[in-house]
Amino acid sequence: MTEKKNDCVFSKMSRQYRPSVHFTPPAGFMNDPNGLIFDGAQYHLYYQHNPDAAFSANICWGHAISTDLLNWKDQPIAVPATIDGQAYTGCAVLDRDNSSGLFPNAHGTNIAALYTRSLPTRQSQYLAVSTNNGQSFEEYQGNPVLDIGSPNFRDPQVFFHEPTRKWVMALAEVEKHQIGFYGSIDLIHWTHLSNFGPAGLPTVNYECPNLIQIRDEHGALHWVLFVSINPGSPMGGSVTQYFIGEFDGAVFTPSDAILRLTDFAKDAYAMQVYSGLQPGEAVTFAWMGNWQYCQELPTQDWRGAMSLPRRLSIRQDPNGYPRLVQTPMNIEKLRRTLLCEKAAYLPKGAHRDISLPTGRAIELVIRLKVDESFQTDPAISGPEINRFEIAFANDAGEKLSVGYDVPSAQIWLDRSKLRGFDHPFYTGRFATPINTALYPDARMLDLHLFLDGCAFEIYANEHLETGTALVYPSKPLDMLRLKADGIGVTIDHFELYTLDKTMCRETL
Amino acid sequence: MTEKKNDCVFSKMSRQYRPSVHFTPPAGFMNDPNGLIFDGAQYHLYYQHNPDAAFSANICWGHAISTDLLNWKDQPIAVPATIDGQAYTGCAVLDRDNSSGLFPNAHGTNIAALYTRSLPTRQSQYLAVSTNNGQSFEEYQGNPVLDIGSPNFRDPQVFFHEPTRKWVMALAEVEKHQIGFYGSIDLIHWTHLSNFGPAGLPTVNYECPNLIQIRDEHGALHWVLFVSINPGSPMGGSVTQYFIGEFDGAVFTPSDAILRLTDFAKDAYAMQVYSGLQPGEAVTFAWMGNWQYCQELPTQDWRGAMSLPRRLSIRQDPNGYPRLVQTPMNIEKLRRTLLCEKAAYLPKGAHRDISLPTGRAIELVIRLKVDESFQTDPAISGPEINRFEIAFANDAGEKLSVGYDVPSAQIWLDRSKLRGFDHPFYTGRFATPINTALYPDARMLDLHLFLDGCAFEIYANEHLETGTALVYPSKPLDMLRLKADGIGVTIDHFELYTLDKTMCRETL
Repeated sequence: MTEKKNDCVFSKMSRQYRPSVHFTPPAGFMNDPNGLIFDGAQYHLYYQHNPDAAFSANICWGHAISTDLLNWKDQPIAVPATIDGQAYTGCAVLDRDNSSGLFPNAHGTNIAALYTRSLPTRQSQYLAVSTNNGQSFEEYQGNPVLDIGSPNFRDPQVFFHEPTRKWVMALAEVEKHQIGFYGSIDLIHWTHLSNFGPAGLPTVNYECPNLIQIRDEHGALHWVLFVSINPGSPMGGSVTQYFIGEFDGAVFTPSDAILRLTDFAKDAYAMQVYSGLQPGEAVTFAWMGNWQYCQELPTQDWRGAMSLPRRLSIRQDPNGYPRLVQTPMNIEKLRRTLLCEKAAYLPKGAHRDISLPTGRAIELVIRLKVDESFQTDPAISGPEINRFEIAFANDAGEKLSVGYDVPSAQIWLDRSKLRGFDHPFYTGRFATPINTALYPDARMLDLHLFLDGCAFEIYANEHLETGTALVYPSKPLDMLRLKADGIGVTIDHFELYTLDKTMCRETL
Repeated sequence: MTEKKNDCVFSKMSRQYRPSVHFTPPAGFMNDPNGLIFDGAQYHLYYQHNPDAAFSANICWGHAISTDLLNWKDQPIAVPATIDGQAYTGCAVLDRDNSSGLFPNAHGTNIAALYTRSLPTRQSQYLAVSTNNGQSFEEYQGNPVLDIGSPNFRDPQVFFHEPTRKWVMALAEVEKHQIGFYGSIDLIHWTHLSNFGPAGLPTVNYECPNLIQIRDEHGALHWVLFVSINPGSPMGGSVTQYFIGEFDGAVFTPSDAILRLTDFAKDAYAMQVYSGLQPGEAVTFAWMGNWQYCQELPTQDWRGAMSLPRRLSIRQDPNGYPRLVQTPMNIEKLRRTLLCEKAAYLPKGAHRDISLPTGRAIELVIRLKVDESFQTDPAISGPEINRFEIAFANDAGEKLSVGYDVPSAQIWLDRSKLRGFDHPFYTGRFATPINTALYPDARMLDLHLFLDGCAFEIYANEHLETGTALVYPSKPLDMLRLKADGIGVTIDHFELYTLDKTMCRETL
């Protein structure tokens, strides 16, 4: 009886936490995005998947297709686990000119996949081709195409390097903390070009490298190398670091000694970029998860979500450092307005409550300006508290808040007041500085928030700061509260939307 | 009436949170350690101090002396705020040969201090000398000795570079994210040598550089450059990063591209090393604080603590990276044994409770070995939970825990279950990987913990990992619970001590 009740509760929570816009697997476990490719007509999303249970085992490539990166059609398993090993992370490319010779009777799109077959004692790189638009893959007979006899050598990402007319593969020498670069003219024979690293945070494993050109605000292209590391994030567990620099077809050289992280929270890992797009165009998914707790999340029948699709660009921050800008894509057409306002004023000490519908994704776009300089002489009275808070709350006393501390120009993300999930590694609070020099007026701030089941995303400072976090309230958050603590706030711009459901998953 | 009651409660909490072994100011606010110097007979601890209120204003140099770094005698204010500005962070050196010419009638110890005078529009470097063993300082008439007209140029640290026979000053070009190096033969005239940075994490401010030689386990000396940054820590707010490399008397060159942090929690900032010691000897204090919340801590009459004194050394970690080892000093003589055991076994699923006395600092030294490999086939059953937890708890349901997650070889520090302090930036949980390759047996782990009022320190992995955290239970933590969750644990070595009080502060 108790068990049944528990089952029922778990099932209800599984539906409550299901996002309606963020991609989640039909059932079972999902981690890294794989083989992201635009084939000219549709976007493919392959993903690390255990269809049979909500933990990592017997990993294959799940598959879904979409024309807008939001409405997804589930497809059959594309790459199964075999006797040669689980089908670990990899990529897909368009072999337009049949460089591999594996598309003799080319029709449709020549999609080749390269991925890691993982056995307990060996990880090697496999090539497979699809002659049915990515629905299924046939493995090349001469596999593996790259094998150095290592049990920790994985996650190939391949792109065609036009200036040197060859394919380049980046992959992780996991425990050596290096990214190896290899070259090939046929996707079959690979020659070692160089290694990058160790660089950045000390860690246990390097994973999921991605090397791609990304355009900056002036149109110039920069080479960006993403390296996921796990565990060893300063926030705990998994994190993605990235380097900006030059790539000459063989060697990646960072242009500075700055260590950048893609996220200031801790649930964005294994970011992968789409192939098949125009040069400089960078579209990406990150896995919303952290290996510290991804297999213990309170959804028993499914676990794992993708971030929103994000367009990447590069912008110089106020310190002069080029940094990643992440902008969620194609959301506009899903919007149903709940409330749009201009120039509302929230006086010092006031708050304002807005009811939220539940069971639908919520988007909030807000631009604000805090009141004039707030303190005359801190030497006499001590520092004042001047904070603006946006909280998603419920009548059970739970809240998920984002706030702006004005004197220190930092924002926070606080999920510690939610009670649906507790775990020793589930960090409750995150913060990042907001460099207000970005704005024409240092009193300004912009925030862009998404709450969709267990998926929470915050973009700030014109999308220069990104925070990605899994959130588990015990009851739905049906109230939005704006609070001006110690300082008046002019809300120049306020747009609150629900988003039409795009995922065919059972939600609550 | 309510106000009086609150006063009384605040006062009680102020005493409950007062450490008895960690240094705290007599009253008011304390931040960075300053002018750390061993004069041949005693250790000086100067510190950033507002004696009049528990927040940062009118900063002067507080002062205390000790022969063992634990028993401190308070001294009068050593460097007051003046019309030239607040007395910000700086250093002290022994000018043995009267290179400055400011010790014409040398007697006692020739202590020279160099620090920043801070005005709202300008920060410049001041020289002062003491002819009474560091009790007070007389400022050089030609001050400032270094002024580039910047409002953000501070925190000089000076040492004598023997190979090039000159004084070298490191100081922070705060907003340029650089450490400037300057040279002098007399402590008065300074020539620019080089700049280091930007390097490491992007941030708002660079502060408190320290460049020092530290010995490794083989006796070799390494140059280590500490750079405190604030805000911009991935854990939120303030953090200290460090670089290991070469210094030729003019230029610091890191020997790798690894970014290291001194701490995996977030309350260790502005680390400063003692001058006046033997080459390669590195003794340090860090300020236990974080600018995100240091002025709002729940001790109304005093705020700010120093870490335990720590000896620094360098050791190669299992990945081959040289890293900092931090070992608390001189604690042994304070110990009173509560419980010492060898080879106790805690079966899977069991726990064990030990009563703790309150109002005294607690030290725990523990070495353990978890049971044999714990899982046969995760593909069938899913990952198991195998954790060992050490919790300081009370009957109000609060606990402060440190734990070891065996499958992922990570430890956590969890202060989120304490209820005496709540703040949007007060992060509850921290984690770090434990590289078990360090041990002869990968099932082994060692932890070294100190709980002393609001001061909590954890050292793990033979002191290769350090976590420093301010902790605020609403009631004293009077119970220690060891818990073996899912795996049996052999406790090879268990030493539990109270520590004799060394600080003349009123505690509870």
